[in-house]
Amino acid sequence: MPDTMRAAVFRGKEDIHIEEVAKPKCGPTDAVVRVTTTTICGTDSHIWREEYPVENGRVVGHEPVGVIEELGEAVMGYEVGDRVVVGAITPCGACYFCQHGDFSQCAGYEDQWGIIGGWRLGNSMDGVQADYFRVPYAQANLAKIPDGLSDEEVIFVTDIASTGISAAETANVRIGDSVVVFAQGPIGLSATAGARLMGAALIIAVDSNPTRLEMAKKMGADVVVNFKEEDPVAKVKALTDGRGADVAIEALGIQETFENCLKAVRPAGVVSSLGVYGDKVTMPVEEFVYGIGDIDIRTTLCPGGKERMRALMSMVQNGRLNLGQLVTHHFKLDQIEDAYPLFSNQEDGVLKVAITTG
Amino acid sequence: MPDTMRAAVFRGKEDIHIEEVAKPKCGPTDAVVRVTTTTICGTDSHIWREEYPVENGRVVGHEPVGVIEELGEAVMGYEVGDRVVVGAITPCGACYFCQHGDFSQCAGYEDQWGIIGGWRLGNSMDGVQADYFRVPYAQANLAKIPDGLSDEEVIFVTDIASTGISAAETANVRIGDSVVVFAQGPIGLSATAGARLMGAALIIAVDSNPTRLEMAKKMGADVVVNFKEEDPVAKVKALTDGRGADVAIEALGIQETFENCLKAVRPAGVVSSLGVYGDKVTMPVEEFVYGIGDIDIRTTLCPGGKERMRALMSMVQNGRLNLGQLVTHHFKLDQIEDAYPLFSNQEDGVLKVAITTG
Amino acid sequence: MPDTMRAAVFRGKEDIHIEEVAKPKCGPTDAVVRVTTTTICGTDSHIWREEYPVENGRVVGHEPVGVIEELGEAVMGYEVGDRVVVGAITPCGACYFCQHGDFSQCAGYEDQWGIIGGWRLGNSMDGVQADYFRVPYAQANLAKIPDGLSDEEVIFVTDIASTGISAAETANVRIGDSVVVFAQGPIGLSATAGARLMGAALIIAVDSNPTRLEMAKKMGADVVVNFKEEDPVAKVKALTDGRGADVAIEALGIQETFENCLKAVRPAGVVSSLGVYGDKVTMPVEEFVYGIGDIDIRTTLCPGGKERMRALMSMVQNGRLNLGQLVTHHFKLDQIEDAYPLFSNQEDGVLKVAITTG
Amino acid sequence: MPDTMRAAVFRGKEDIHIEEVAKPKCGPTDAVVRVTTTTICGTDSHIWREEYPVENGRVVGHEPVGVIEELGEAVMGYEVGDRVVVGAITPCGACYFCQHGDFSQCAGYEDQWGIIGGWRLGNSMDGVQADYFRVPYAQANLAKIPDGLSDEEVIFVTDIASTGISAAETANVRIGDSVVVFAQGPIGLSATAGARLMGAALIIAVDSNPTRLEMAKKMGADVVVNFKEEDPVAKVKALTDGRGADVAIEALGIQETFENCLKAVRPAGVVSSLGVYGDKVTMPVEEFVYGIGDIDIRTTLCPGGKERMRALMSMVQNGRLNLGQLVTHHFKLDQIEDAYPLFSNQEDGVLKVAITTG
Repeated sequence: MPDTMRAAVFRGKEDIHIEEVAKPKCGPTDAVVRVTTTTICGTDSHIWREEYPVENGRVVGHEPVGVIEELGEAVMGYEVGDRVVVGAITPCGACYFCQHGDFSQCAGYEDQWGIIGGWRLGNSMDGVQADYFRVPYAQANLAKIPDGLSDEEVIFVTDIASTGISAAETANVRIGDSVVVFAQGPIGLSATAGARLMGAALIIAVDSNPTRLEMAKKMGADVVVNFKEEDPVAKVKALTDGRGADVAIEALGIQETFENCLKAVRPAGVVSSLGVYGDKVTMPVEEFVYGIGDIDIRTTLCPGGKERMRALMSMVQNGRLNLGQLVTHHFKLDQIEDAYPLFSNQEDGVLKVAITTG
Repeated sequence: MPDTMRAAVFRGKEDIHIEEVAKPKCGPTDAVVRVTTTTICGTDSHIWREEYPVENGRVVGHEPVGVIEELGEAVMGYEVGDRVVVGAITPCGACYFCQHGDFSQCAGYEDQWGIIGGWRLGNSMDGVQADYFRVPYAQANLAKIPDGLSDEEVIFVTDIASTGISAAETANVRIGDSVVVFAQGPIGLSATAGARLMGAALIIAVDSNPTRLEMAKKMGADVVVNFKEEDPVAKVKALTDGRGADVAIEALGIQETFENCLKAVRPAGVVSSLGVYGDKVTMPVEEFVYGIGDIDIRTTLCPGGKERMRALMSMVQNGRLNLGQLVTHHFKLDQIEDAYPLFSNQEDGVLKVAITTG
Repeated sequence: MPDTMRAAVFRGKEDIHIEEVAKPKCGPTDAVVRVTTTTICGTDSHIWREEYPVENGRVVGHEPVGVIEELGEAVMGYEVGDRVVVGAITPCGACYFCQHGDFSQCAGYEDQWGIIGGWRLGNSMDGVQADYFRVPYAQANLAKIPDGLSDEEVIFVTDIASTGISAAETANVRIGDSVVVFAQGPIGLSATAGARLMGAALIIAVDSNPTRLEMAKKMGADVVVNFKEEDPVAKVKALTDGRGADVAIEALGIQETFENCLKAVRPAGVVSSLGVYGDKVTMPVEEFVYGIGDIDIRTTLCPGGKERMRALMSMVQNGRLNLGQLVTHHFKLDQIEDAYPLFSNQEDGVLKVAITTG
Repeated sequence: MPDTMRAAVFRGKEDIHIEEVAKPKCGPTDAVVRVTTTTICGTDSHIWREEYPVENGRVVGHEPVGVIEELGEAVMGYEVGDRVVVGAITPCGACYFCQHGDFSQCAGYEDQWGIIGGWRLGNSMDGVQADYFRVPYAQANLAKIPDGLSDEEVIFVTDIASTGISAAETANVRIGDSVVVFAQGPIGLSATAGARLMGAALIIAVDSNPTRLEMAKKMGADVVVNFKEEDPVAKVKALTDGRGADVAIEALGIQETFENCLKAVRPAGVVSSLGVYGDKVTMPVEEFVYGIGDIDIRTTLCPGGKERMRALMSMVQNGRLNLGQLVTHHFKLDQIEDAYPLFSNQEDGVLKVAITTG
């Protein structure tokens, strides 16, 4: 076992490249996993553009499929060689937040809560776009992959599927509900799937990219709206007897889509927000129904933990969720420098990339 | 029975005065109630200042205690002469919203939903600052008063207590939670009481008025903060190990208190908003945790319906809730012209006024 | 308009036949509906066998599709001639129970609560196996049928689909859950569909009738178990890593299936019970985990109300739910004497019958 | 530090006595705590009577207050010498059950789920009626005691208060609800307190012991019923307009009280069960409303984890909960042989005993 490995390292604006770095060490509650497949996320693109701050020298990436290489002495029930996924968010299971059921805002054993505490990999510790990575709180986060599922079929449960589907869960979509999803990038497409999985009767997907709108239909949308051709709010009202949707999902993170959610949702409806807002968002008086419309605005960070991973992989296994179809491009880890601009600039019709280490 | 009666009529900016108007008629699903005690609400002050639009000639007021005078042919289980309260919000029980459990946004038999649809009295139909008023959907809205309770003990269940307490309910305050309540007007004081009733372990009440802060202690606050003397957000953090409160309640309706709620709440906490916002509100990026802090912002309009009234009156009856102590001033209906400026301008240490017709 | 009509009348054990009876009258909050299609329910079979008591002379039946014939003066938003369904349970929207959200246990305007109060049609008032029936609380219960849906496509939303799906809703089935459904009669098949609609990852359907097990697959089951050939509890354990199912649904109403639910559910799981128990049921100590297994046993009566009907019809309309496939036999109202024994004795592979008045 | 210590060891029927045993060792995720105060629980009495099986030689007891003596290498944020409580139930935070929020049914790192998996201390591992005990999953279970609280003020948060209060939480008691609590032993008294803390308007406590009924009033009951003098079910009906209570809590574990809960609860109400049933329980048909009364029967095992302990201690600290008043007798650890029969046989008016090691 060599002491060094390849890893994608953040070095500055639009500069993430492969370096040879030390292999991670395994503490008593950790595991080390050899990565087989990973991917690039919208958040990684923010890092690449220096829009989201991580320290210089940080190994990036938070969506791994791999094989257990080493196990801490306190970890039980796993074997070296087990195929696993690890979620982007790695709850400790023991802190104030985890014990309240707010796993994603985990403060860890250090009880150092802070913004988005549960996101460690490729953020507050080294990530997974590498040959190996360390899994913190391994007992809570190693999820074995069911036999027969390929890396590409399960890679997206680690982040985008968990995040997207959580929008529907947080909104508590009920059988018979109408749901509108603004933006059909990978997260929005997963939100569309989530609304379908929870029993929405009518799902309206909004975007301007025809390829993504086509994919939205495959993921479960009943109606797609190209907002360059049609007013999505008017369309939602027309399809809901003028009331508005029971649930409006924001999957982009800008004022326009946020505001459209407020406009498109019915009184006492739920705005379920997934977008990462780089700028302040404002609630106009009337759209906010003067603050007394019984409107909820709920925000959600990707749910993690091994049981979340298990649940979503079982959905894939039993044919409820086809995530593999989101992969449009393949790269080797050594080519990741090329993958970043292609994915970040949405070139060549890219939806998601698969990056293999082999 | 005379065909006319006294009523407080809106006639323009700062002009609400008593006129002689026609007594209301009773349809098949209505009741007519003779008012014994009513009060003025902050919303009435908005009408008086012409900040909230109602039509010229509208009889105002939405918080009544009285006696049943007449019953529609379809109404069952009541007798003329029964002492009753009727909530400010009068759900029909039959529309899309009511059948979803969103009674406050009731669209009525006409299925004409709109902004704050369930608020009819003194808004979309004539109100209760009068000798008599018509109760729409009487079967769902007439709540008999238990023996032994005075008008003043129950008058505030119709609006401020129902509204204030709902902030804690909507936020799902749990045993052991920390709760901060921004603003201690009548609504905020009721929210403080609500947090206490639901089992919060630590309740922090914020205002600048020493009398109101004193009353906040009587209603259940553990700690009071005069924001002119102390930074309330820093105080909340200091009292919660730096995390922030589990629940932050907004009871005013301005940017500053709204923003302070976002600052004072912990990750994955709930901002429960009661304020009526006359202007847009903005979520700064960091306070909103970039939209991924698992923060919920929940807004609530006063819950109505006879069962809500029954539940709150039983809390009064069994000594859980002392609402009578909020009355600081008494007026006769004929003096209502004097009561409006006193209450609206918060003169003479007023908290709430009781207005009697007798 | 003739003053009499045909109606299926209960006259004693195994004696329900067509008689000429008075057409119902329409009160101010009622409607009268001309029936086009109805069906026979398991509960009707209990009445036919004299196992469930209704008064001699009662017109039976509680699952109607029809056309509005007459409207009470207080009812708004409908026209004579509108095609409607009315749920088996007809909540008033105004009583203690309705205002608590417990619509199915509605006590009505009379506030006469009692066992299964919300079930009126064909039980405490005349039912729908007739040319016409009276709709109580019409404003809350008339549900317009979307264009393009046939009587047979929507008839089952009135009872079995609403009931069956509610088992999954009451159990709060979550994405990724495992669910076992004991008994695949019409109600159990609908429960299977409900589990699928709410996002269960693994659905195990248990029965001994091969035709019903085949239909279970069409309604959403992943695995079917013929309990005459295989131990269903062992099978559930084998498919869930030995834990047991997250949710076990009882759709029959006997000790054996109830007990199997307790055996098959995991610690802290939910037993969701739909069965109508004619005899006491017992919880053995170990299966009940000594009362400290965090097990919930939840029972549910069919949800009613026009909004429930709308929600389920929209599921049919958008292809989420195929209820028409449950119809195996057709009868005319005049032939209902033949339909009762056939359906009640499960002859000729019957699943559900459609009875038309035309 | 000596290698042996005193411990109360189970040796057979009515034989628990002090022996000198090896001091526990501390693994990487463990802590060792020096006990200062402990108590005897009803479950310990079952062990003493050989009604609940633990292995011969087991150190018993599961309710500790103490001081950290040793910390595993993976445990962070604590110091040797910190005063702590540890709950009777010690969730790992990482297993299937914990990640579903079902902490009490924790399967541990071994993923060995089983009956009441989360109860380890004095059950599946050595307990706390000793000079020292080992804390499993210490990061999730060490709860620091706020300054100023005595051992006796906090000892009961470890089990009876957490258990009793959970009955109200599991039942989701709402503001204005009526609640009846059958049996006013230490658990039932805590349930009475829990109902009060969550906002019940009317609390009816049932027992036959006048001292316990007196204490019930101190813990929050409005009405007490001595079932030897009065029919408690009839009383509940009389106090709730004939409907029955919204919530009925069972705090004993026998057929009679269980059945009375079914009789005393309203349609669509909740039976919240805490009792440990030594024998099967049966639901009579009518009391169970034929299985279609929308009745829920919810069972709850004591919630554990450090955050639960923190929450309850903060309730004590801010005067919401007076648990110290439940202590009627004091013993030294060496006298525990005397304490067992006194407590188990309810001699000398005992409610709870405090056992100190000093």
